[in-house]
Amino acid sequence: MKYFDKRYIASLDHLYRVNLVNSSSGFKSANLIATKSKEGVSNVAVFSSVIHLGSNPPLLGFIVRPTTVPRNTYENIKATGYYTINHIHEAIIEDAHHCSAKYDASISEFSMTGLKEVYDHNCKAPFVKGAPVQLQMEFKEEHHFKINGTIMIIGEIVGMYVKEELLKDDGFVDLSQGKITAINGLDTYTIPTIKTRLPYQRPKKTVKQINQFDPSHI
Amino acid sequence: MKYFDKRYIASLDHLYRVNLVNSSSGFKSANLIATKSKEGVSNVAVFSSVIHLGSNPPLLGFIVRPTTVPRNTYENIKATGYYTINHIHEAIIEDAHHCSAKYDASISEFSMTGLKEVYDHNCKAPFVKGAPVQLQMEFKEEHHFKINGTIMIIGEIVGMYVKEELLKDDGFVDLSQGKITAINGLDTYTIPTIKTRLPYQRPKKTVKQINQFDPSHI
Repeated sequence: MKYFDKRYIASLDHLYRVNLVNSSSGFKSANLIATKSKEGVSNVAVFSSVIHLGSNPPLLGFIVRPTTVPRNTYENIKATGYYTINHIHEAIIEDAHHCSAKYDASISEFSMTGLKEVYDHNCKAPFVKGAPVQLQMEFKEEHHFKINGTIMIIGEIVGMYVKEELLKDDGFVDLSQGKITAINGLDTYTIPTIKTRLPYQRPKKTVKQINQFDPSHI
Repeated sequence: MKYFDKRYIASLDHLYRVNLVNSSSGFKSANLIATKSKEGVSNVAVFSSVIHLGSNPPLLGFIVRPTTVPRNTYENIKATGYYTINHIHEAIIEDAHHCSAKYDASISEFSMTGLKEVYDHNCKAPFVKGAPVQLQMEFKEEHHFKINGTIMIIGEIVGMYVKEELLKDDGFVDLSQGKITAINGLDTYTIPTIKTRLPYQRPKKTVKQINQFDPSHI
């Protein structure tokens, strides 16, 4: 095993450190978050930090970087209260990744890529056409992490579109069947395949517990 | 597409809703977090919420559920300040998943599974033997999310072991090569394979930008 201690990590070349540390959390969710500014310009950006926070109410969180440089997604969510989360699937990887380019707030990434925006009657923010899972989100809370200035945005799922064939009888959504990607590090897109689905686990009987009911101990 | 609105999601059967909402964030990281109590009992638990927060300093966060029921991982981290994060790989999926069973704090999951604990001279918390990526973490901050009582634990990577062959020249760690898993929903373990690695993206020249420098507009 190669070992890096704290001091060695701090001394690494910038790009080496970014690649190493971005790989260290494991695979990451791959989503496009779409918003609309008050001025009516749509925006779509790649995020690999969306996580599940709870099912009732249905809450997801994601991380935005410090606001010292313009962050259109954050500003639009704060201005409008709405956004959508759209899963990145195999067919749109290149277009999705291009949304990480730094465009001015006046330019919609939808106009610069093959991605298409679609709307329903309930949501002011655009959805990404063709994404196998599309979530309409309502902003709930933000938390500022002092340690490095990152912000967690927490939102509630108020609408959810799922491609019919991915949805199983017990509510499980088969992301592999939808060719949805997982991100490794900063820039590597993977396609996962299911290895196993395991049942709910209960404790095994331990030697200690068996002994408690052993008549020889009474 | 199947559509669920907020009211429909709230009306779903508990297990259906849990499966549905847990699938909605996309693929999740698959990690074993290991700790040691003040009394010297080791603990290891599955987490699918570890996310990257920053590379300099190297920070990761993860979510613990409300503390209304005993949560050994949280209590041990608060008591000792240390924990380890260990990637779940193909060979240990069943043992890792069994760690989700609710054992009493006096019982180490290492004693109830095939997982083996190992130590180095720097870290009081155990590492999971054989995990292709093993991180020594120092507790930094916790944030309580009012909306549902979940807690984000933020820690700094103070030591990092990476299996040599997974580490590439630019610091990228090839998680697929290590057969590291990604989780879909609550209980489904997948193995991702690399589809593509894409370069850093810069904005394309837009029509608008070209016009700004068009002499006919001067």
